[in-house]
This record gives sequence, C-alpha cells and structure tokens, in this order.
Amino acid sequence: MSEVRVPEGPTEVASTDGRGRLDLLFEPSGRKVRVPPGVFLFDAASWNGVAIDSTCGGHGTCRKCKVQVLEGLAPITNLDTRAFSIEELRNGWRLACRIEVATDLRVDVPPLMTRPKAATVGVGRKVILRPAVQKRYVELTEPSLSDQTTDLDRLFASLDDLELRPELPVLRSLGRVLRKSDYKVTAVVIDNVLIAVEPGDTTERMFAIAFDLGTTTVVATLLNLTTGAPVAVQSMLNKQQPFGADVITRISAIMMDANALEPLTRLAHETLDELAQAVCEEGGVDPSEVYEIAMAGNATMTHIVLGIDPEALGVAPFIMSTKLFPEVLASEVGVHVHERARAVVFPALGAYVGGDIIAGMLASGMDRDSRLRLFLDIGTNCELVLGNSDRLLATAAPAGPAFEGAAIRCGMRAAPGAIEVVKLSAEGVELRVIGDVEPEGLCGSGLVDVVAELIQQKLIDASGRFVSDEEAARLAPGLAARLTQLADLRVFVLHWQGNVGDVEKSIFLSQRDVRELQFAKAAIATGWHILLEEAGVKEEDLQQVLLAGSFGSYLSPASAVRLGLVPKLPILRIVSAGNVAGEGAKMALLSLRERTGAMTLLEEVEYVELSDRKDFNDQFVDQLAFPV
Amino acid sequence: MSEVRVPEGPTEVASTDGRGRLDLLFEPSGRKVRVPPGVFLFDAASWNGVAIDSTCGGHGTCRKCKVQVLEGLAPITNLDTRAFSIEELRNGWRLACRIEVATDLRVDVPPLMTRPKAATVGVGRKVILRPAVQKRYVELTEPSLSDQTTDLDRLFASLDDLELRPELPVLRSLGRVLRKSDYKVTAVVIDNVLIAVEPGDTTERMFAIAFDLGTTTVVATLLNLTTGAPVAVQSMLNKQQPFGADVITRISAIMMDANALEPLTRLAHETLDELAQAVCEEGGVDPSEVYEIAMAGNATMTHIVLGIDPEALGVAPFIMSTKLFPEVLASEVGVHVHERARAVVFPALGAYVGGDIIAGMLASGMDRDSRLRLFLDIGTNCELVLGNSDRLLATAAPAGPAFEGAAIRCGMRAAPGAIEVVKLSAEGVELRVIGDVEPEGLCGSGLVDVVAELIQQKLIDASGRFVSDEEAARLAPGLAARLTQLADLRVFVLHWQGNVGDVEKSIFLSQRDVRELQFAKAAIATGWHILLEEAGVKEEDLQQVLLAGSFGSYLSPASAVRLGLVPKLPILRIVSAGNVAGEGAKMALLSLRERTGAMTLLEEVEYVELSDRKDFNDQFVDQLAFPV
Repeated sequence: MSEVRVPEGPTEVASTDGRGRLDLLFEPSGRKVRVPPGVFLFDAASWNGVAIDSTCGGHGTCRKCKVQVLEGLAPITNLDTRAFSIEELRNGWRLACRIEVATDLRVDVPPLMTRPKAATVGVGRKVILRPAVQKRYVELTEPSLSDQTTDLDRLFASLDDLELRPELPVLRSLGRVLRKSDYKVTAVVIDNVLIAVEPGDTTERMFAIAFDLGTTTVVATLLNLTTGAPVAVQSMLNKQQPFGADVITRISAIMMDANALEPLTRLAHETLDELAQAVCEEGGVDPSEVYEIAMAGNATMTHIVLGIDPEALGVAPFIMSTKLFPEVLASEVGVHVHERARAVVFPALGAYVGGDIIAGMLASGMDRDSRLRLFLDIGTNCELVLGNSDRLLATAAPAGPAFEGAAIRCGMRAAPGAIEVVKLSAEGVELRVIGDVEPEGLCGSGLVDVVAELIQQKLIDASGRFVSDEEAARLAPGLAARLTQLADLRVFVLHWQGNVGDVEKSIFLSQRDVRELQFAKAAIATGWHILLEEAGVKEEDLQQVLLAGSFGSYLSPASAVRLGLVPKLPILRIVSAGNVAGEGAKMALLSLRERTGAMTLLEEVEYVELSDRKDFNDQFVDQLAFPV
Repeated sequence: MSEVRVPEGPTEVASTDGRGRLDLLFEPSGRKVRVPPGVFLFDAASWNGVAIDSTCGGHGTCRKCKVQVLEGLAPITNLDTRAFSIEELRNGWRLACRIEVATDLRVDVPPLMTRPKAATVGVGRKVILRPAVQKRYVELTEPSLSDQTTDLDRLFASLDDLELRPELPVLRSLGRVLRKSDYKVTAVVIDNVLIAVEPGDTTERMFAIAFDLGTTTVVATLLNLTTGAPVAVQSMLNKQQPFGADVITRISAIMMDANALEPLTRLAHETLDELAQAVCEEGGVDPSEVYEIAMAGNATMTHIVLGIDPEALGVAPFIMSTKLFPEVLASEVGVHVHERARAVVFPALGAYVGGDIIAGMLASGMDRDSRLRLFLDIGTNCELVLGNSDRLLATAAPAGPAFEGAAIRCGMRAAPGAIEVVKLSAEGVELRVIGDVEPEGLCGSGLVDVVAELIQQKLIDASGRFVSDEEAARLAPGLAARLTQLADLRVFVLHWQGNVGDVEKSIFLSQRDVRELQFAKAAIATGWHILLEEAGVKEEDLQQVLLAGSFGSYLSPASAVRLGLVPKLPILRIVSAGNVAGEGAKMALLSLRERTGAMTLLEEVEYVELSDRKDFNDQFVDQLAFPV
C-alpha cells in the first residue's frame, strides 16, 4: 500500500498491472484510446491529443465541451441539464468535462469553435491550460432579515458547481471584504479549497512559480496562469553551498551535527524566496498574486527543504522518509507569495531517483512514448531511466564528483574560464572556454572531450593508460610534447599558463584524472547495462538517449559515445533534453492533468537498486575499459 | 447548499425531508430502527441502544463486533476475511463496524462477551466510547537493501486497516523516532490523519479537553479518552471581560476599533490556555498527551476565538460569516497541548443560536426524544428550542442584561453576597445569600424570586405596578413598611444595610427594575409563544421545560412559572439541565458518532427569526403583563 491514494492517470496502452481499461472511440477522427475507469472524457481526450472545445479547460464553467455520446453510458449531470435541451440530452449530448468514463464509449466530437488555451513546455510538448488555481468573479445580493444566509453560504451559492471548503484566514476577513466591495468579489480556489476572496474583479491576475531545486543551482520561472506564458526566469546558486557541494556532504553535515538541518533548511528557503521575489519584480507581479508554487528536486534537497531529517538517505540501506510529500503552504518552505499559496512538491521514486527525475520523465513524456528511450541525468549521482509506454525502469549510479570538476587536478565547475570543448588533431589543440577568456581549468564536458579525443588520437589506450613518449611521438607528433611528467605523474598539457614547459602552472589532464573519469563512466555504463538487461533489450534496440540537466546540454554526444558513457547510437539520436526538471515543474502548475501524471509515474516506474546486485561488481570492472 | 458536506446521522424516525430510510431489525431483541443509507451498522446499533460487543468502539481493530446477517445484503470486507472462516462468511457473519447499510437488514446480535466502554455525560446519557483520536502500538521490521520501503510506507503497512495521510511535522522526525526506538512506536491518528509517532508504547495515555466557552465564564474538563472519565475540571472568568460583559458590548468594541479584535481573540486564547494548563496540572497529565480539544460557545465567542470578524453579528440583519467552522489546530486557538492537537468547534445555527446551544441540544438529546420539550438558555440573549424527534424549531430573544444583574439598581452578578433566593410572607422577608455572607445585591434568580413573591403577595399587580401604600398595608401588613419611596422612585426594600429607614443604603427593588424584568420576561415569553404557534402546538402539550446554563440551575421553577417566564407546567416538569454546553463538548470528544450528531442537528433544526415577524410587537405587548 502507499501513503496516500494516488489518482490513476490514463495511458494509451493497457498497463502491466492487469487492471481493467475501457475503450474510447472519438468520431469523426476515429481515434481510439484506452483509459482506466473514472477518468473524465475531456481529460482523456486532451491527454491523447483529441481537441474538444473549451475555454475553461474542463472546470465546468464555459459549457463549451459538448460531445454526443453515440454508444455507451454517460449519466446526465446537473450541469448537463443547464447546458442542453431535453431533446439534446435524449440524443446523447453531454459536457465532456463531466463524463466520468464507466463503460466503453463512442463519442462524436464537433469541430472546434474556439482554440483551447495551451502552452508549450519542455521538449516542444503542448500542455492544455488547466491550472489547479482558478478565480471566479461573482456579484452577490446583500443579506436582509428575510435572507440571513451566512456570508460563506452566500458566496458558495454563487459557485454551486464547485464543492468547496473554506480556509480559516478567508473567514477571518470575509465579512469585511464583502461589505467594503459591495458584494462584488473574486474567489480564489485551489482544488476544492477557497483560499482567498478578493475585492472586485481580479480574474486576470493569476500567477505561479516553478522551481528547479538543484543541489548546485536553483531556477525559478514565473508563469502567468491565465495565458500559460512564462513571465520571468531567474537562477542562483543554492545558498546551502557552504555545507558542501553535493548531497552526500550535506547529509554528512547533518549526521555530524543534528542542528545543521535547521540552517540547511533555512538556506534553501532563503534561496527560494530570493528567487521568488526576483521573478515577481522582473515580471511586474505582486507576490500576493502568486497562488501556487511547484518544486522539483532530488530526494535529499526535497527532504531538507521540508525540514525532514535526511540522514537515512545517506547511508545503506538508503531509506526515504516518504515517497509522497504532504501538501504544504508556500510559506512553509519560506516562500512569501500569497499567504495561502500552495506548494506542490514532486514525489520521489527512491533515495537517489528524486522528484527532479519524476519531473524530467513527465516533461520528456517517457511514459507516453512508444519509442524505447534512455534518460540520463549525469552528476555526482547519475539517474537513469529506461523504457517506453509499456514499461519503465529506473536506477541511480554513484558517478562521483568528476563531472562537476571535483577530484580532477585542474578541474573546475562550468563557470567562466572553464574549458568546455576540446578538439585534438595532429596539428595541435583547439579549446573552447566559457566566457571566451583565458582558460583556468577543465569542466565536466571538457574532461569528457579531452579523454575522448586522446583515445581517438590513440594517446590513451583501452585500459585508460597514457602511451609511452615514444609511441606518442610516432602516433601524434604534433601533440607528443604535451604528454609529459609532473613529478611521478603522467600528464597531458592542454594549455600552458606561464612559460611553455612549466607543467606545474599549466592546465593539464593527469593519469589519475583519467582514472577518476573511468570510475565515473563505469558506474554510469554499469547502470544502463543492468537496466537493459533487466528490460531484456539490447543497446541497439534503443531509439533515443535523452541527456537531462545542464551538464547534458554541454556534453558532446560524440565524445560520450566514444568513452562508452552512453550507448552507441547514431549521434543525432543522442539528444540534450534541457532543464527537464524545471519544465516538469511548470507542467504541474499549468495542468492538473499533468500533475496527476507525475503521481502516476511513481506507480508505473520500477526501481532497480544497484548496490544490492551480485552482478554489479563484474559489470563495473567490465565497464572500466574504454571502447576502442 | 452548505459549505461542507454534512454527514447525516441516523435517526429513529423518518426525517421530514422525504429521503429514503432503511429498516434494521436486530435479533433476538426484535428492536427495529430506521436509518439513512451509508450508516455503519455498529453505529446505528449503539446509537439506538442495541449493545454489540466491542472493545475498540468500532475502529475495526478488536474484531469483536461479530453479527450474523440473516436477511439483506452486506458485502464481505477485507477485515471480514481475517475475522471469519469461509464457512462463517457464507453463513452471513460480518463485523458490524464494517457493514455500511445499503439495504434493509435483519441481523442477529450475539450476547455481550465484553462490556463496551461507555461514559455517562449530560443528563445521565450514556455515550459509547469512540473518540476521533486513536493510538496504535506497532513493532516494525528494520529496512534493508532488499527492502527499501520508505519509513512512512513501512509504518502504514502495519496500519493497513486505516487509510492515512501524514502531517509534515510527523515526517520531519519519523526517521529519527523509528531508529532510536528500535522500530517500536505508537502511531497517533485523528480521523485519517497521522498526527504523531511516539517512541515505545504510549497507548494508555490519551487525553482531550472540552471547553464551554461562555461570554462570562469558561469551563474546561480534562477527559481520559481511554476510559471516558473526566480527570479534572477548572473554570475561570473569560479574560475578555474588560471589553464588556456581554456579546453586544464586545462586538461594539470591535465596531468602534477594528484593532480590538486582535486583543479580544488573544484574551480568549489566554483564557483557554490557562485553563488547559490548569486541568493538565490537576490531572497529572502532560499537555503533549492532549490530542484534541472541543469548544462550544455562542456565535460571537466562536467568531472571536477564531479571529473571525464578528461585526455583522451585531447589527441587523445579523449575519454570521459561516455556520460551520473549518478544522483548526488547538494551537490556532492558543491552546498549547500536543502541537498537532485538533480543535473541534461546534457549528452555529444562527447569529444568536450558537454552538453552545447545538452542544446543549446534543447533550439533552432534543432530536432523539419523542417528548415535546422546550429548551431555554436564559441570559442577556435567550436561546429557545422547541420540539422533539419529529421537528425542532429554534429562535433567540433579546432579553437584555436584567438576569445578569445589570440595568437593575441593586443588581449584581451571581457571586458571593448576591441574594439568590427570596421568600416573602405576611411575617416578613427570608433571603438566601450566596456564600452565606451579608447581602450586597440582587442576582438574576433573586430578582425573579422577589418579583414573583411580590405578585403572590399582590404588592405588584398584573401590569407590574407597585400597589399604593394603603393597599399594601391592607394586603400585607408585615411587608408594607418596606414599600417606600427613594426620591420619586417607588421601591421595595429587601435588606436594610445601615439604619432601618435609610433607603439609599438598603438593597431594594425599584419600580424601574420591575419594568426591566418585564421587558426581559416579555421577550422570552414572546419567543416561546411564537415557537409554539409555529409548531402548531399549545402550552399544555409541552412535556418538559429544560433550563440550561448556570442561571437555569438557580432559577426557581415556581417563580419562573408565576412570572410567565416559562410555560405553565407542573413544577417537576421544569428541569434544570446543568452545563449542557460543556456536556455536549465532552460528548463530541468521547464519540465520533455524537460529533456527527451535532452536525446533523444543524440540518434538522429550523431557525425562526423573531425580528422579522409582523406579530412580534403584538405578542410582546401581550407578554409584558404578569399572569395573575
């Protein structure tokens, strides 16, 4: 059993769990889809790309989503009786947003009269706008001795298509707000909760903020919920940095001193709030107009930002407190927007496959695509997801900090001065440096490049060893001089800082650095080899590799293939997916349907624990070598 | 429509709304009851006095409430499969607490093996113990690499008969609590919410506090939820007193200065918290062992304690913000017990028929008794409820402050020194004084007594006027000397303070005081006369008058009848009901069933607004006279 009831999202294919699915046939397109019982027809249609007229996005207010049920049962609802004549009801006309699918259905969808509002997110995916937040402007009649209806009941009577419960802060001022605004007010509703009543008509002002809560960098996007458009984007380093660069060092800080949780939580809150205020300012939005935020982060970041003790994530057997996090207020994670704004926290699949990966899967549509794909988010910890709409497998591989530039002698983070691209040829070395300045070090993508190029030039052999000076002179005379010694360490100089020949001051790659990269690469390659094996498929069956995160967008696909870091596919099939965690967070804010999809993913994805496997070590040793 | 879905409680008679009811026949007793669909059989039985074995009170844990369904449909639940053999299931054996009544049923109830825990409350009513709070002790297996179930799922798996959602504060410390207590913990659950996880076995420690939140006095009762017994009781004056003695003056304070709401709310919180700490200390209970509180108060007190602006309650058309109040934490009303303890707030029927009256109706069983009864809570505002299990009518009458001793020349609150009982005879005056001290003034019950006695002695006529000195000398020579003048005011001296004859210093009743009482009495009598008229019944049809509150317990029934304050019934049928508001609050804590009953009352009682009625003034003038 799971800790909360997870609504089940519709999928195009029968799920593997054997539960019943129902057939929907949309006319005149002839599109067929299979959905679990209880799904709303409108949602099933929009989810599957069948356009049905609507301006309210399925909230039951516009009454435009008219369809005719040709076969199957669709009970008449209250709203139907208002939208249709008796004759029309008899002929099967219904509002699609009110049909809870309970039998197979054949429905006729009239041509579109209006265009549903949609926003483009992630890798070009369209999301039909249906945020959890909605605003309703109403004009109420004043009470009298013959109509002593309470303020709340009076308001609710005008919103009788919703089943609402009020929050205490709304009640505290409701009387005053109604009376000072001549009973003309805007109700702000999230799900079934009345979170605010505002004087006058404020329906055009409705915003949300999506956070990609990274260990290193936090990104905030302010969204206009009435149009679906992003209004402002800001990013900054996570203020938790002083406690360590990666999740393990931050968990360690708490293991050393339980009191460290509080400042870590506070620093995360400060980071989020500073970004929230910045995007509001940039977008010309008052923070009180932001009614919802969403956060996608790894399990550790999510635990810490909620003030949940993350200790058990850091040591075997790597136990999360929970997969699903309770509903919280934005103020409970330190974000000062509307006082009753909600925070949607992405659930985590495992201690090392967190909410950022769930969001990434959502944004990349992993569970809806029939192509066999591999999703890789490479960092200190590498998350891997393999599969398609039939089956999804996920795991995490401990890559270590090499890709972040740590543990690499001349390594540095991807910041100005970092060598990010390296090309070697017989003639010499060609470098691209971030910020186009004098190089200061080597970041992850540069590291991958230089090792891949050295393999290409045969200056590094399959075992990862630099060749001898003699061989170097023979194989690549233009580069041989760069292969040299620093004390007893064999190095390849990329850039002379001071005088040529002053290795100490140069930017170089050492034999030890190559070893670090080998370990990182082996961990990741072991991960996807085991996933392929679990899924019973081969490397060549893969149709796409998605590289998530910022490292993924800088990594050279050719170099990654050459190192064996990713499966050997045609280069064009290795795709940078961008900031998919952030895109997933945006989708969850723009569409309740997509939010439900994130919860469904949690049920659908099978987690494979690597550290428990007997074959891990053998595989790991095999993967240490480079393909040559 | 109403603001939240109100669960419907079972009633013995078909309700007037025409909705379907189902028949239950309990064997071997042959007891028949009618209930609405969806009620649990166990509840329906205990509600109607049919005893079914149970030690858990219907929570599904003891598996003792075994019954055999002889006729009708009762689907087999998960729990049934664990409690019975296939043979028994086939023979219709089910757990009563899991049967949701959906058809007529005939069931056989085995003789009691254990005694259900029950507590006696209110006017001798038995309440079967089934608090919202429950505790479960569990011993969990430790996680491992092959069992990475999250901490929360691990806990929930051991509580799989409950459908729980966790609160964030529980998650914050869950990992630490589990690990430090060797995975032996007690889960604290309210409704479907996991509010705490405590190390070790704490199931024997479970408390709640019931508050009667009066305008004048606040009473707290600490209850042991495992036994149902009251552990400690404390009362104190409401700290809001400096803002005025009654609700109108407190609302006025806020109307004058909106900033006055905050200190009024704070003072209410301080009153509640001081009492909470006092009962915990008296009962030897740690405040963190108190998981729920209940509050019954009038609409104004309830609005203020929740920080809800009460202004609209104070002026026509007397509008409440809401009838039903949202779930809040005890800490949100300033009560520092368990940090996640819940506060149950009684709903209000109207601006002047508040949660205290709903609680009083619950405690006196107004809606379950077939006798026609009148419930009176006399104070500055008098609340009246007339009816029985068929129909209930309620109203409020503005009695003014006479009964509180205010607006009465020698009036005072019922405190030491107040004359509370007055007997007049030809021989003279007999007084009973609170605290058995020198009299200082006249409280409400004394006021009623002296006027009733003066009417009896014919010193006051039907119109409320003192007779002339001559007539007094003729009718009651032993009392005539006390009927005298103070300047141009005619007075009757009850007690000479200084020298006999020094009227100025004496304790007396003035002609103006009699007028005040007449107005108060007329308002109340108009109230119940209109209710009788609305109900289409006569004074003589009444079978009982219930006098609620502390004033009700001191008021002399004989005097009240003589003044026409209450209907003319045999004295023994005029009953003091005691602190029914507090008893109702206790019942709501001891029994979820009774709590639901309070919500049902809100739907069942018809509110009659007096100020809107054309016949009010005529009735009022008629009622000014005393019956002679």
